[in-house]
Amino acid sequence: MQSMKLPGQEEHETSSARENVSAGGLDSDHGSSHSPSGSSETHSRELGLPKDPPLFIQLNELLGWPEALEWRETEISLITLSTSLHHRWVLFEEKLEVGAGRWSAPHVPTLALPSLQKLHSLLAKGLVLLDCPARNLLELVEQVIRAESLSPELRGQLQALLLQRPQHYIQTRTWPCWGSTPPRKASLNEGVPPKEQTQNPLRQKLPPGAEVAAVLTGELGFLPQPLGAFVRLRDPVVLGTLTELPLPSRFFCLLLGPAMPGRGYRELGRAAAVLLSDLQFQRSVRRASNLQDLLAALDAFLEEVTVLPPGRWDPTARILPPKCLPSPHKRYLEIRGLSASCAAGAEHSPGRGPQGACPELQRTGRLFGGLAQDVSRKASWYSTDFLDALHPQCFSAVLYIYLATVTNAITFGGLLGDATDGAQGVLESFLGTASAGAAFCLLAGQPLTILSSTGPVLVFERLLFSFSRDHNLDYLPFRLWVGIWVATFCLVLVATEASVLVRYFTRFTEEGFCALISLIFIYDALGKMVNLTHAYPIQRPGSPGYGCFCQYPGLQGNESQWATTKPKNRDDILSMDLGLVNASLLPPFECTQQGGQPRGPGCHTVPDIAFFSLLLFLTSFFFATAFKHVKTSHFFPSVVRKVLSDFSSVLAILLGCGLDAFLGLATPKLTVPTEFKPTLPGRGWLVSPFGANPWWLSVAAALPALLLSILIFMDQQITAVILNRAEYKLQKGAGFHLDLFCVAVLILLTSTLGLPWYVSATVISLAHMDSLRRESRACAPGEAPSFLGIREQRLTGLVVFILTGLSIFLAPVLKFIPMPVLYGIFLYMGVAALSSIQFVKRVQLLLMPAKHQPDLLLLRHVPLNKVHLFTAIQLVCLGLLWIIKSTPAAIIFPLMLLGLVGVRKALEWVFSAQELLWLDELMPQEESIPEKGLEPEHSFGGDESEDSELMYQPKVPEINISVN
Amino acid sequence: MQSMKLPGQEEHETSSARENVSAGGLDSDHGSSHSPSGSSETHSRELGLPKDPPLFIQLNELLGWPEALEWRETEISLITLSTSLHHRWVLFEEKLEVGAGRWSAPHVPTLALPSLQKLHSLLAKGLVLLDCPARNLLELVEQVIRAESLSPELRGQLQALLLQRPQHYIQTRTWPCWGSTPPRKASLNEGVPPKEQTQNPLRQKLPPGAEVAAVLTGELGFLPQPLGAFVRLRDPVVLGTLTELPLPSRFFCLLLGPAMPGRGYRELGRAAAVLLSDLQFQRSVRRASNLQDLLAALDAFLEEVTVLPPGRWDPTARILPPKCLPSPHKRYLEIRGLSASCAAGAEHSPGRGPQGACPELQRTGRLFGGLAQDVSRKASWYSTDFLDALHPQCFSAVLYIYLATVTNAITFGGLLGDATDGAQGVLESFLGTASAGAAFCLLAGQPLTILSSTGPVLVFERLLFSFSRDHNLDYLPFRLWVGIWVATFCLVLVATEASVLVRYFTRFTEEGFCALISLIFIYDALGKMVNLTHAYPIQRPGSPGYGCFCQYPGLQGNESQWATTKPKNRDDILSMDLGLVNASLLPPFECTQQGGQPRGPGCHTVPDIAFFSLLLFLTSFFFATAFKHVKTSHFFPSVVRKVLSDFSSVLAILLGCGLDAFLGLATPKLTVPTEFKPTLPGRGWLVSPFGANPWWLSVAAALPALLLSILIFMDQQITAVILNRAEYKLQKGAGFHLDLFCVAVLILLTSTLGLPWYVSATVISLAHMDSLRRESRACAPGEAPSFLGIREQRLTGLVVFILTGLSIFLAPVLKFIPMPVLYGIFLYMGVAALSSIQFVKRVQLLLMPAKHQPDLLLLRHVPLNKVHLFTAIQLVCLGLLWIIKSTPAAIIFPLMLLGLVGVRKALEWVFSAQELLWLDELMPQEESIPEKGLEPEHSFGGDESEDSELMYQPKVPEINISVN
Repeated sequence: MQSMKLPGQEEHETSSARENVSAGGLDSDHGSSHSPSGSSETHSRELGLPKDPPLFIQLNELLGWPEALEWRETEISLITLSTSLHHRWVLFEEKLEVGAGRWSAPHVPTLALPSLQKLHSLLAKGLVLLDCPARNLLELVEQVIRAESLSPELRGQLQALLLQRPQHYIQTRTWPCWGSTPPRKASLNEGVPPKEQTQNPLRQKLPPGAEVAAVLTGELGFLPQPLGAFVRLRDPVVLGTLTELPLPSRFFCLLLGPAMPGRGYRELGRAAAVLLSDLQFQRSVRRASNLQDLLAALDAFLEEVTVLPPGRWDPTARILPPKCLPSPHKRYLEIRGLSASCAAGAEHSPGRGPQGACPELQRTGRLFGGLAQDVSRKASWYSTDFLDALHPQCFSAVLYIYLATVTNAITFGGLLGDATDGAQGVLESFLGTASAGAAFCLLAGQPLTILSSTGPVLVFERLLFSFSRDHNLDYLPFRLWVGIWVATFCLVLVATEASVLVRYFTRFTEEGFCALISLIFIYDALGKMVNLTHAYPIQRPGSPGYGCFCQYPGLQGNESQWATTKPKNRDDILSMDLGLVNASLLPPFECTQQGGQPRGPGCHTVPDIAFFSLLLFLTSFFFATAFKHVKTSHFFPSVVRKVLSDFSSVLAILLGCGLDAFLGLATPKLTVPTEFKPTLPGRGWLVSPFGANPWWLSVAAALPALLLSILIFMDQQITAVILNRAEYKLQKGAGFHLDLFCVAVLILLTSTLGLPWYVSATVISLAHMDSLRRESRACAPGEAPSFLGIREQRLTGLVVFILTGLSIFLAPVLKFIPMPVLYGIFLYMGVAALSSIQFVKRVQLLLMPAKHQPDLLLLRHVPLNKVHLFTAIQLVCLGLLWIIKSTPAAIIFPLMLLGLVGVRKALEWVFSAQELLWLDELMPQEESIPEKGLEPEHSFGGDESEDSELMYQPKVPEINISVN
Repeated sequence: MQSMKLPGQEEHETSSARENVSAGGLDSDHGSSHSPSGSSETHSRELGLPKDPPLFIQLNELLGWPEALEWRETEISLITLSTSLHHRWVLFEEKLEVGAGRWSAPHVPTLALPSLQKLHSLLAKGLVLLDCPARNLLELVEQVIRAESLSPELRGQLQALLLQRPQHYIQTRTWPCWGSTPPRKASLNEGVPPKEQTQNPLRQKLPPGAEVAAVLTGELGFLPQPLGAFVRLRDPVVLGTLTELPLPSRFFCLLLGPAMPGRGYRELGRAAAVLLSDLQFQRSVRRASNLQDLLAALDAFLEEVTVLPPGRWDPTARILPPKCLPSPHKRYLEIRGLSASCAAGAEHSPGRGPQGACPELQRTGRLFGGLAQDVSRKASWYSTDFLDALHPQCFSAVLYIYLATVTNAITFGGLLGDATDGAQGVLESFLGTASAGAAFCLLAGQPLTILSSTGPVLVFERLLFSFSRDHNLDYLPFRLWVGIWVATFCLVLVATEASVLVRYFTRFTEEGFCALISLIFIYDALGKMVNLTHAYPIQRPGSPGYGCFCQYPGLQGNESQWATTKPKNRDDILSMDLGLVNASLLPPFECTQQGGQPRGPGCHTVPDIAFFSLLLFLTSFFFATAFKHVKTSHFFPSVVRKVLSDFSSVLAILLGCGLDAFLGLATPKLTVPTEFKPTLPGRGWLVSPFGANPWWLSVAAALPALLLSILIFMDQQITAVILNRAEYKLQKGAGFHLDLFCVAVLILLTSTLGLPWYVSATVISLAHMDSLRRESRACAPGEAPSFLGIREQRLTGLVVFILTGLSIFLAPVLKFIPMPVLYGIFLYMGVAALSSIQFVKRVQLLLMPAKHQPDLLLLRHVPLNKVHLFTAIQLVCLGLLWIIKSTPAAIIFPLMLLGLVGVRKALEWVFSAQELLWLDELMPQEESIPEKGLEPEHSFGGDESEDSELMYQPKVPEINISVN
């Protein structure tokens, strides 16, 4: 129901109302897994519509009767391109706004019923020439006029008029989907069309083979009666300058006559144009063999129109292109009397279909069977994994993901250093990210995955460190043993093909996971800022931090007084008599430099830092958020918006650093080692296996390792499932078992070297996939480009991590980054992750009066109090998790996360399967319930198409499971 | 084109898409000034539709064939209440969402054309009983069944079925417009209807006299053929529990039959219900005398429907209620063949009609003629001006406006004290606001006006003060003479009826005025914050502000060293040897208390203040903005949102004060006198006429007075014009001349007492009017309540100012307000005023790619480059004004503002009248151009109804001329 915008997600440069006009409903060959009733798919193949050439429809209107007659292209240009099920272009109506001299925004064309009826009668009485052999405009006009019963004089006048060159409004229209450099390769050989025709930007955007339908309409007072003619040319010919584009015309429709009461000829022409733009009508009229066929097609069109009652709708209002369009396939079936119900089954799966569709998640039953399968499957693609990367798009993907990865490495490195008192740091983060990431890209099952530090693991590491500090353990050796055990447990999970259990992690579990981690992020970010104000206290009036002077080791200075008698309380210090000489008011640093000693309680306080840090924190948070949202704003060209949005974190960090450098205050900065050695002083690159710890700790480490294994399993596999969803149309298959195996091996290695632990990170991996989207290039106003697939390869990831490794030399620059800026980014990550989950949307519903609630499909199908109950249960679970997290037993929180699966199971006692389907998704055993049984509400009445919007719901990942 | 939301503006609790469904197009009696062609108004009176009782339409569906037949109220409830031109209720479709068990949001009902055709044929073949004499359901059912050719057995079955009690989904629907306390007075005498009927909240909301139309539909397999019956009862009777409400039914429509291919009986029933809800159809069918009349009415309906082509629209998508509805009057005319063009003239005035419509702005030609007219007009209303205030609504208006006025007095008082070095202050602000405001409310021509300090006057006063300081003038006496001259000039303006010139102030001038003042506000607010960081410097590492200790006047202390030799530079101070004894590190304040003396450069710096002030500044700005926007959010009940939004400034100030008090830092606070005497020490309440100034200054003061007069004239009169716009439906007339006269007298008085100057303030006056709106109480989902007028009276204003006067005793509390908080509010005012003008919207267009630009009517009619040119000219003018403002000649800026009128006049050489009509508005002499001549684009084609949205544009004030 709600969709998360991803950093690199290809932009639909249209208003939000039509954001979803994606390939929904058209992906019946790739998306077969969505259709529980397989029969409908078979049907669609059998009935597959033959491919007709695309049609460009133009309406020329005769204006200025009776004084100055001239033809003008006045209104709509409706293009319908290709009738195949898989590629469809639909152009909405664009109105020429004469005053403003530009084309309006695309909108749904509305017609008046009388115009359609009038058109019907005009065609019935008028001339219909099917397969007319005319070879140019003159011949065509002659044939049309010959058939009319007109006086010779009128005939001449009419012929002259029809041959008159029309005025086209040729100007750059706004074509939302093409880049700034239209391909200029199209060259024409049909005669020598005028410059304005060939240079028309529209021309270069139509696919080869496009045909034109010209509709000519207008009031012509000298005609005794209305004149209607419809011509289908046997061979399409270019009709000179009649049309805006020098394309061969297939249809020619003439609607002229004396003054008509009511809506006039423009409406009549619009009706004809809209009719011709209808795929179904077009199809019929291409095959029509006589007038009756034509009229039958018109009647079929009328059968299907939607009618708005006059008192409830102003006919002049413009309707934005709808979110979803009826699929031509469904219309085709309906027309042919194949009841809609055979297609209805396919349309009734909610936004997130059951995950069970993934074929890789079937158990083989053999030890390491899944792993073996993964390896053999991926091996066959291995060479193409490098060849497929030879595309310019991959360069920009590398740049984008590299910057994101480095930002991540800096942020998480800084936080890790903070959390582990420097046991690890930025250097380890860079080194680990680069080596682990590169190794994973080379060997993993799903090479599009980007390995990264993630929130859950960071949280666990922080808890592990506090635990080992509280029990005086030597952290890194202890951590090494945890790593060894985790690798072991993960190997067991791989051997037993445990990855198939991932299907029990429904959205309920994922949301609990994500919400907890996000809240910990937010809490930690704020906590760190509060800690800063303790380290750099605010100087209130009357606070003791005022005095500081510099005393030189002089003659009669009673230094001993300061060194020995420690003042007990504030009043002691303040009222102490200072019998001093040789003192100055130099600031502490300069004082020490000159050989003196700073004296007094004020020497150790640094003023202004607390509030300035708070400002930096808020600045980086707000700017990261604002830059992120630039993408959906209406300002600036799309390139600028994309850059600002994609690099929001980088820009926010740079801005914070700039502000800090400008004022030059001594804010706490990121600790960066000055040379290439581990951050922790005195350790080598290899972690000693025992250090100061007792030997039995290597066994006891199995306990926290079990918890970490749960966490890593959940984090890794949920990401993998999201990445391998069917809507991404991946061709090379997934590798759940192989990926987990790789993660296990890498955890062993990074533990040995004392580097951070890594798993697949959802957001950055999705951003990676998204930057590699293949899309149909051309698209029409009002419709989004269609998605073809992902460039699946290993090279982009590999290059990204090699670059990250080289970035270790950035270290001298990194020390200028103030910590509050990183905390701000940290807060931003938490808030962004939290606001991306449906759970939060439902929490918002709690605060919203019913009448203001958005028209969510969820709310259409589940009673509000049930929705609230579900939300409340999630809130209670979250509260319990938070309480556990705050006790000394915090480290067991992964176990509790796993407990959510149990709670979800128990929910089946409270909610019906139907409700759970809408609120969550189904667990494996529930899926066996037949789809129809889940829809009791549809047993009444024929409401089967009510929720057809459903099938057009973009299936983007809804949650941002690992804060990264 | 754009509308400014006012603080108290009555909320339309609907989505923005239907925000404008106001009384547009229905105010033909009040809004006669909008219709240049008087004939259409006459027509509407002659054709005035007779009043039919409101109709509540209910659809009952027979579900569960063949097993468990039951009637259910399944779908729409369409009410059409009253067919008069002046009050109209339209209910959009609400769907019962069975799964969720609630009614959907109202939306436009869409029908399928075949359903309407099927209905046509069913009625044509079926039973039509007009003026049926049945007195209850049984009789009705018997009469219907008797006429059908059915076997006796079927008849019995059918009768039993029809008498079966239907299931209603009675539950609280969301009625957006009624308050939380529905009036429970409606008591029923017709029989004893079941509890659920009488307690239905719907019942109490229908106006008396409402009738019901019941539509019964469903599949009934045992019927041999479809059965259609339409009954109009001669006398409406209550049909027992058939209907949800125990109201008398007028129409009864039965549509039953065997299984039907296609869309089924529900669609058929919906078609009948929608048809019955159409005012025009209802009207016809009430007067129909036979079947032919009924079918003709259906055909007439079909003539008018809007058709959406099937391939371009998903018939299951829900359309939100449109911005505007076609007026029933227009439809009536169209149907009767009176061409739409006679009404079209009235509809073609752009958003802002020419201001010339105001009858008070006609010159009488006599000296003081306008003033005399104003006095005599207002005198006749004087007693009702107090009696009309006797309404509870006035209490809440007083509370709201009082808080706004006090906030204003505090803010402007604080700023004025700041700007004039304490020549005036908060006390003067309170005193002046109270006395001037109360006097104005008692005597002015437009008593709804709230007199207040406004931005332009404040800016001028600041400039006047700098001028007098630069020339060593005694400020208050100089200011007194300026005041005397201003009063004189204003009297001359009153005498010469100069107020009629206000028609030359087009939006171009108003926007220049507003933008300049807003920018000055923003610049000043930021400037004041920068000044604060100079007063409280930030302590960078190495800055000299470090040391401070406390020295007691002791024995060998060489005090003279500090008192006499002033250290020359930083190094002098820092390296100075301090041969001290008897010193302590007490903070400066405590040191002084204990008889010591604070020593050292650090004693005078207060750390942390600069950044904390910045935080307070940002906090108050952001929270004021955020609270303001709460109104349009979807959270919280409307009461909460309204309070947060209305009192945004007060709340932001309170929040800032709370934050400041919590941390207890020594931020700069508002200076408040401790006793009741002028803020400037040593002056009495009466300003001496000369002071230390030379005598000729009293003559020279005429020059700045001339400038201030221009400013006051513009500020006062533009506000007055906005307040007296026709859309507010004021009954008691305006008083432009009288108002200016009052302002002149009050300026004389306040100058004498050294109080601030006041003129009418746009925003707060509009808020006042808005809190006194009279509206029709009841309204239907999807439609806003209709506006009836304003409670025009003098009492609310008077009480507000008396309360403000009493608030002088608040002074002890006010000294806790930190200045940065007020600067934040100041910034907020500037930004809010700036963002409310169309000019800023057009500046944004400069940054927007054409395809992202909103579908403004302006852009439909004026070429984009012309729009940009107009904006660029405004920007250049603004730049010039800003440059002048930054020179020593700043004080002449009012003259330059007046110069904008000349620039606007010159624009007629660059832009066509048509373009200026859309971009600006017309100046008096241009108005004489016939309306038709201004619409060249309409000379082609019959596009006359294209911009009918125009007439529904809410005519709210577009600019916020005086920042207040």
